[in-house]
Amino acid sequence: MENFSFKNTTDIRFGAGRIDDELRNVVSQFGKNVLLTYGGGSIKKSGLYDRVIKALDGLNVVELTGIAPNPKIESVRKGQQLVKSQNIDVVLAVGGGSVIDAAKVIASSKFYASDPWELVVEPSKRLTIDQLPIVDILTLSATGTEMNKGSVISNPETNQKLGTYGPNTPAVSFLDPTLTYSVSKWQTAAGSIDIFSHLAEQYFDQSKNNDVKIGLIEGLMRTVIKWAPIALQTPDSYDARANLMWASTLALNGLAHTGNINGWTVHPIEHELSAYYDITHGVGLGILTPHWMTFALTAETQTQFANFGRQVWQLSGDDQTVATQAISATAEWIASLGVPTTLPGVDINSTEHFEAMANSAVIVGQLDKGYVPLTATDVIALYEASMA
Amino acid sequence: MENFSFKNTTDIRFGAGRIDDELRNVVSQFGKNVLLTYGGGSIKKSGLYDRVIKALDGLNVVELTGIAPNPKIESVRKGQQLVKSQNIDVVLAVGGGSVIDAAKVIASSKFYASDPWELVVEPSKRLTIDQLPIVDILTLSATGTEMNKGSVISNPETNQKLGTYGPNTPAVSFLDPTLTYSVSKWQTAAGSIDIFSHLAEQYFDQSKNNDVKIGLIEGLMRTVIKWAPIALQTPDSYDARANLMWASTLALNGLAHTGNINGWTVHPIEHELSAYYDITHGVGLGILTPHWMTFALTAETQTQFANFGRQVWQLSGDDQTVATQAISATAEWIASLGVPTTLPGVDINSTEHFEAMANSAVIVGQLDKGYVPLTATDVIALYEASMA
Repeated sequence: MENFSFKNTTDIRFGAGRIDDELRNVVSQFGKNVLLTYGGGSIKKSGLYDRVIKALDGLNVVELTGIAPNPKIESVRKGQQLVKSQNIDVVLAVGGGSVIDAAKVIASSKFYASDPWELVVEPSKRLTIDQLPIVDILTLSATGTEMNKGSVISNPETNQKLGTYGPNTPAVSFLDPTLTYSVSKWQTAAGSIDIFSHLAEQYFDQSKNNDVKIGLIEGLMRTVIKWAPIALQTPDSYDARANLMWASTLALNGLAHTGNINGWTVHPIEHELSAYYDITHGVGLGILTPHWMTFALTAETQTQFANFGRQVWQLSGDDQTVATQAISATAEWIASLGVPTTLPGVDINSTEHFEAMANSAVIVGQLDKGYVPLTATDVIALYEASMA
Repeated sequence: MENFSFKNTTDIRFGAGRIDDELRNVVSQFGKNVLLTYGGGSIKKSGLYDRVIKALDGLNVVELTGIAPNPKIESVRKGQQLVKSQNIDVVLAVGGGSVIDAAKVIASSKFYASDPWELVVEPSKRLTIDQLPIVDILTLSATGTEMNKGSVISNPETNQKLGTYGPNTPAVSFLDPTLTYSVSKWQTAAGSIDIFSHLAEQYFDQSKNNDVKIGLIEGLMRTVIKWAPIALQTPDSYDARANLMWASTLALNGLAHTGNINGWTVHPIEHELSAYYDITHGVGLGILTPHWMTFALTAETQTQFANFGRQVWQLSGDDQTVATQAISATAEWIASLGVPTTLPGVDINSTEHFEAMANSAVIVGQLDKGYVPLTATDVIALYEASMA
C-alpha cells in the first residue's frame, strides 16, 4: 500500500425532502448573494426550481442557466462575469455533474483576473487562489463531483475536454434520491456505467495488498451492478436510486484511490471521443471499457481480473477462465442497460480523428504510466475495435 | 436506507515516517503552546517520543503522561488544569485509543468551568462549547477514535464507563503502520477484535437494502480477518499493519453507519465488564460476541447472518447452515488470535455484579431498541453463557 493523504470536508445531507427544511440555513450561512446555476428546463418541469426559489426567499438570487452536458468554458466565462459583477458569496448548483463541475470553476474564477480557461489548462493556478463555497443539489447519480475537487470542462474551439481541480470540495451536497426518479433511461444507464468505470479505473492498479480499497470498490461495484437495472425498470424505486446515488459519491470522493499507484486509463481515452463528437460520457465509457479490459488482461494481470470475477461477478473456476468470463459479464451488463456498445451506435462512423485523439489521450492521460501502459498505437486499436 | 448526514473533516496522513517531515507544520499552524499527551513509557522505549520532541523543537510543549487503558476521568481533570493554566493552543495525542479519547475531552475541558466528568455524562454540554484542535499520532489500530468525535471515559469511583462525543473529529491524524510493529500480541489481537466488533455492530441492523454500507463493512471484515493473524505472526509486516490501521479508521468514521437504524449492542454490554473489572476492551468483546450472535440468530435475522457467512466467511449452503457456521467461524477466528474466550479467562470468576451490570447496560445502551432487543435478563444470560 502506498502512502496517501485523505481529507474530504463535504457535508453530505442524504435523504428525501431535506432541501425544503435545510437549504435556506445552509446557503445563507455563506452570505446573501447567491449564484444559482442549472442546466436546461428539467428542474422547472419537475418543480425543483420552485422549491429552491421558495427556500431561498429573501436572499439575493442571480441565475445562470443553460449549462450543457460536457459543460463548456463559455458557461464558465458567463459565470465569472456574474460572480464578479454581482459580488456573489456562494454558488448553488442544481443539477448533475456538468452543472456542479462548471460551478466549481466559476467559484474559483471570481478570484482570477483573466480568462478562466487558463484555470482549466493549469489547475495549479487554481490552488493558489480562493474559491467561493459551493452548495449543490444533485439530480443525477454519475460523476461523484458532489464530493470531490474535480471538474471536466470542454472547449469546443480547441476540441479539448480537460480535467481540472480546485482547492475545495463542495461545502454541502444535498443527495436526495427522489430527485433522480425523473432521470431518463439513457442518463440512468450512462450514469451507472460512469460510476462503474470510476471504480474500475481505481480497482485495476499495480498496488499490492491494498485490501481496504479493494473491498470498498468490490462492494460498490456489486451495488451498481445490482441496482442499475432496477432503476431502469422501476424509475421511482427509492432503494435503487439511493444505492446508485451513495455509490456514485463514494466511488469518487478519494477513498477508492487510497494507497494506489496508477492514474486512470479509459477516462482520458473517452474524453477525446466526447471532445470531438460530444457524445454522452458514460455511454462512451461503456463502449470502450470491455475492449480496454481485453487489452489489459495479460499474464501479469490475470490474477487481479480473476479476483474481480470472483468477488464482483460471483464466478468460480481457474484464474484464466474466470478472468475472461468477468470481462464478458461486464460487457453483457453494459449491453443489458440498453445503450449502444459500438462507436457507430453513437454516430461515429469515421476513423479520421483516431490518430489525433489517441496522441492527445496518451499525453493528457499519461497513459505510459497506466496500470497497463498504452501507446498511441494501442489507443487507435481500441478505437478501431470499438467500431463493431 | 434511512436518511443520514455525513461530514468528517479529519486530515489523514497515512504512511511511514511522515511525522518527521510534517508534524511541526501541522501542529504549529494552531499555535505555539502544545499539550503532549501519552500513556506509559512505550513511546520513550520505541524512540517515538524523541522524534516528536525533535519535530516540535521551538514550540512550548507541556506534557501530560500516564494516561491508562480505559482512560480515567482523573487524567482528564489533570489535563483540564494544564490546558487552562498553560494557555494551550493544541493537544497532541501520541498513543492508542485511550490517549486520543482522553485528549478529546481535555480539548473540550479548556472551555468548561466545572468538573469535566459532567461533559462525559452529558455530551450535549460539550456541543455548546468550543474544543481545542487535536493532532494525533496513532500507535494502536483498534478504536477508530483517530477519525471520529467519540471518546469512552471511565470513572472508577462510580463504576461507570461512558461514551461521549464532542463537536469535532481530530484535525489531523498521522497513521504510520510502522509505529504498530511493537504492539504486543495481546493488544494486536484485542485491537483486531475491537475493529471486527465495530463492524459487526453496524452490519447487523434492521435497515433494508443498505447495500453500500453492507459492501463496505464486508470488505473491511474480510480485511481484518485476513491480516490480524499475519500481524500476530509477523509483527513487522507492513501490509498487515497498514491494512489493520486503515480498516480500524474506516470502521468507525461514520461511513459504516450511513443509512442505519439501530444502535450498538455488544459494546455497552462489554463496557460494564471493563468498568467493573478493568479488562481489555477488545478481549471482552471477543468473549461476548459469539454468544450475542447465537442469541441474535432468529428466523427474522437468519438471512442476514447467512449473507454474513457467504460474503465474509466464503461459506456456501442453505441459509440455516451458513448462518450457524458463520457464528462458529467468528468464534474460531477470535480463539485463533490467542486471547481468552471466557470470563474466567480474564479473572472474572463471580456472577455477583451481573445483575447490576445488565441493568446498567440496558439503560446506557438503549438495548430495547437494538437490532435484536435485549432485556436485562437476556444480558445476564449472555454474561452467564460467557462463564464457560
